[in-house]
Amino acid sequence: MLKRYLPILTWLPHYTSRLFAADMIAGVIVSIMVIPQSLAYALIAGLPPVVGLYASILPLLAYTLFGTSRTLAVGPVAILALMTGAALAPVAIVGSAEYLQAAMVLALLSGLMLTLMGILKLGFFANFLSHPVISGFLTASGLLIATSQVANLLGISARGFTAAELLPNLITGLTDTHAATLAVGAGSLAFLVLIRRRGRQGLRAIGLPAGAADLLAKAGPVFAVIVTTLVTWHFDLASQGVAVVGDIPRGLPPLTLPAFDLSLWHQLLIPALLLSVVGFVESVSMGQMLAAKRRQRISPNQELIGLGTANIAAAVSAGMPVTGGLSRTVINFDAGAQTPAAGTIAAIGIALVTVALTPLLYHLPVATLAATITVSILTLVDVKMIRQTWRYSRSDFSAMAATILLTLIEGVEAGIIAGVVLSIGLFLYRTSRPHSALVGRVPGTEHFRNITRHDVESDSHVALLRIDESLYFANARYLEDTVYALIANRPEVEHVVLICSAVNLIDASALESLDAINERLKDSEVTLHLAEVKGPVMDKLKQSDLLDNLSGRVFLSTYAAWCELRQRKE
Amino acid sequence: MLKRYLPILTWLPHYTSRLFAADMIAGVIVSIMVIPQSLAYALIAGLPPVVGLYASILPLLAYTLFGTSRTLAVGPVAILALMTGAALAPVAIVGSAEYLQAAMVLALLSGLMLTLMGILKLGFFANFLSHPVISGFLTASGLLIATSQVANLLGISARGFTAAELLPNLITGLTDTHAATLAVGAGSLAFLVLIRRRGRQGLRAIGLPAGAADLLAKAGPVFAVIVTTLVTWHFDLASQGVAVVGDIPRGLPPLTLPAFDLSLWHQLLIPALLLSVVGFVESVSMGQMLAAKRRQRISPNQELIGLGTANIAAAVSAGMPVTGGLSRTVINFDAGAQTPAAGTIAAIGIALVTVALTPLLYHLPVATLAATITVSILTLVDVKMIRQTWRYSRSDFSAMAATILLTLIEGVEAGIIAGVVLSIGLFLYRTSRPHSALVGRVPGTEHFRNITRHDVESDSHVALLRIDESLYFANARYLEDTVYALIANRPEVEHVVLICSAVNLIDASALESLDAINERLKDSEVTLHLAEVKGPVMDKLKQSDLLDNLSGRVFLSTYAAWCELRQRKE
Repeated sequence: MLKRYLPILTWLPHYTSRLFAADMIAGVIVSIMVIPQSLAYALIAGLPPVVGLYASILPLLAYTLFGTSRTLAVGPVAILALMTGAALAPVAIVGSAEYLQAAMVLALLSGLMLTLMGILKLGFFANFLSHPVISGFLTASGLLIATSQVANLLGISARGFTAAELLPNLITGLTDTHAATLAVGAGSLAFLVLIRRRGRQGLRAIGLPAGAADLLAKAGPVFAVIVTTLVTWHFDLASQGVAVVGDIPRGLPPLTLPAFDLSLWHQLLIPALLLSVVGFVESVSMGQMLAAKRRQRISPNQELIGLGTANIAAAVSAGMPVTGGLSRTVINFDAGAQTPAAGTIAAIGIALVTVALTPLLYHLPVATLAATITVSILTLVDVKMIRQTWRYSRSDFSAMAATILLTLIEGVEAGIIAGVVLSIGLFLYRTSRPHSALVGRVPGTEHFRNITRHDVESDSHVALLRIDESLYFANARYLEDTVYALIANRPEVEHVVLICSAVNLIDASALESLDAINERLKDSEVTLHLAEVKGPVMDKLKQSDLLDNLSGRVFLSTYAAWCELRQRKE
Repeated sequence: MLKRYLPILTWLPHYTSRLFAADMIAGVIVSIMVIPQSLAYALIAGLPPVVGLYASILPLLAYTLFGTSRTLAVGPVAILALMTGAALAPVAIVGSAEYLQAAMVLALLSGLMLTLMGILKLGFFANFLSHPVISGFLTASGLLIATSQVANLLGISARGFTAAELLPNLITGLTDTHAATLAVGAGSLAFLVLIRRRGRQGLRAIGLPAGAADLLAKAGPVFAVIVTTLVTWHFDLASQGVAVVGDIPRGLPPLTLPAFDLSLWHQLLIPALLLSVVGFVESVSMGQMLAAKRRQRISPNQELIGLGTANIAAAVSAGMPVTGGLSRTVINFDAGAQTPAAGTIAAIGIALVTVALTPLLYHLPVATLAATITVSILTLVDVKMIRQTWRYSRSDFSAMAATILLTLIEGVEAGIIAGVVLSIGLFLYRTSRPHSALVGRVPGTEHFRNITRHDVESDSHVALLRIDESLYFANARYLEDTVYALIANRPEVEHVVLICSAVNLIDASALESLDAINERLKDSEVTLHLAEVKGPVMDKLKQSDLLDNLSGRVFLSTYAAWCELRQRKE
């Protein structure tokens, strides 16, 4: 019981020095690697860079205690940063104390929601986001973030959370392009693209072992940060107008509770919910993927609690909303992390940086951070998935296209809501017109096939109707309509047999429709039979009056119905 | 083509004098019977009684042209009157000219929506209202209407559209009970209950033939209206404070267009949508039931156009929202109506009344109308259905209970929306955890059964997993989880076979999950196979890359998979 809610108890008692050595190496690597991205994501959200560091300390400790994935690395991520910025823009002015407060409230609300959903075992809620919707949302968000970073690369200002806000600002700002900033930004970008594309092969070509080459290639952003910081410091580019990170307060994050402002909480409720769901979906699918690689398991409901407490920890330590981040998790996994202790070590490393090393970050150019964001964010733009979805299913594609367009035009909230509503609507629409077929007997066998597709025996007095879908409220009326059409079009029919081999569920609406069909057929002197009803469905039907009132019988097999009803006629 | 959009063309060319005679009788009976209820429903909506009559003239002609049911009788109905009142209360003051205008706008919006939905063939939207939700909604609405009529029976005033509004008004008003009104109301009520319960048997006992006894019993409200009107006139009860219908303007309804007031239209948009859907569902299920009785058919999408034009007709003739009414349709059907011409005849009859006979209605007591409403509305309270649903399915019951409670407490709009959201959510929840079972071979046969329920052969290296649900976004992740749990718990498994005999659909999300499962199992050196994939599902899969990348094979039958994989091992 205690182990279920404190997964740390499952691994800590068996912790060994060998595991610690592996976790130590991974933790140190992660703490160095994630510093640039933590600063960058805070900037996307419109927050001071140090907030990104704060959000990479306490939340990691919370996840170590409550999370179930062995290798997930928690912290600020690009998508949540974008959603945070979009949520905070209407409630406070960027740079104000209220804005910082609102970010903490957002993290707190999200943390409380996630924890509560975990306790109530509502992890299944995340399933309502279909893959095409998530993929479309990530693609559109990636495009929005990349567009917003172009401004930083050019040294102009263009904030906004929709294409309609960003593009005009960007275009009118083009003439103000700052040459030195552009040089730093374009240089970093070129270097990062190069090392991403060719780094690994290049390093291996000059003789490095595979593992080291991999790691060094991944350290590209750290290298870019160091070089551009040194260059900016040496030539004092900050005084020439190149935007730099600047003063970062030294010390551990202050522990405070976010203000309890009812109207602010109310305004942030929906954004917090969307942010929670998106963060959870991203994190849990990645966690599941990595756990499967090592034949481990994660518990989605306990993950909610892990991420929830991580967000609460972020809220009380002047942070911003967090979740399992793709790049930091991959670094952690590849660096050989064995347990969540690696996260604790990374947290200690980042804490040390905030205590001692923030002055070193003063001359870090914002354009370099923009370059690292742009390169990593464009991996979210998944053109292959768009093409595949188009090819596989037009209905899934339309949900995806709506999500992309609405995210770009109306913003992240409208996009994700439209995607969810459309996915559910299209699914209900598809199942509301279930495939059904009149079947006949394949001569000489006990098999029955669609009479319009195969050359089969049929009987004009017996209609064998196979239903290829569960029966529930969205298709109950369609079933009635199908049966009534059948008997209206074929007046010679005396027996209707519903073959239920693919019916996994009959809800109360469908039950009532079956009752109505039974009564109407009685009025028309047609007998209704059922065949091949599954065990669990039959158990439910026995709790209703349908079987008592049924004018015909329940046959175990279609063949039995066929034999019996043919015989009866003769 | 023309016949599809003008169903009148399907029956008018074959119209005979025999049909006309039948329609004539039915039309005259209906026009007399529906006058009291038309007046009463206008009062429920807070409108002058004459609006109920107006709404029973032109809309009937429109439905004659465009409707597909032979026997449906269109007009104001109790539920729509309640919804109309609830929708108008926040936008205008009862009795004002704006209130009348708003009722016309509501009818127009509803008419336009219904017509548009019909043209776009969106009739399936109505299916999203599950039977338990409709039944719960009708029960709660019936209770609200009955409660509101108690005030009229007592001669006190207590308007409101939720239990919270009605009950306190009613209780504080009790001391003002008007004795003469109560006498008229209670007398009518007692008479109507008696004739409803015993009228038919009583009239047959004194020697009337069955048909005439039926009809006379149904004419109970007309009789009550005549008697109480005469009594009220004779004793001049109106001057003693008994509320009467009073002056009704003589003449045909004025033809006008409702005002185009954008903010009013905007406010009434959601109420009009809910009203359209509820009206359509009620009307189409009744129409379907009656059509089936005579082996006729109705077309749901054309019905939308029929009801839509009827509402537009109501809007331009100073009316209120209309739909197919239960009691008037039953009267029409029982009186032998053969075609929609009966509706036209009823419309002419009601028009004659408004032109010539409205002074006769002056002394009709409102309490009598309240008694007729109370008696007919309580048939909507369906305790049996509540009990049945509780017995059959807790999840359907919870949607029903939420609908009832929210309708009573928060009003009709909140109730119906909560019901729809909950129905859909519960359905998705149920299908999001699909039943699946590991199966083994029934010894000596080609049949496979659940290994936990039956004594079957199984092989520790081959996991045969039968999936009992279509695979789509809401359960895709659950499928992944199930398979990963399977291989995590049984490290000796080398082959996983997914048996897809009950899978009717694989959407893009589920496809991606299958891809992910395939890749993860490859990493763990487990081979993934499919078996018994249905034809249409297979056709879709061939448009994807899954089959090319699949580590294993697609088997036609589980038995084939079993033989092959057992052999491979040996």
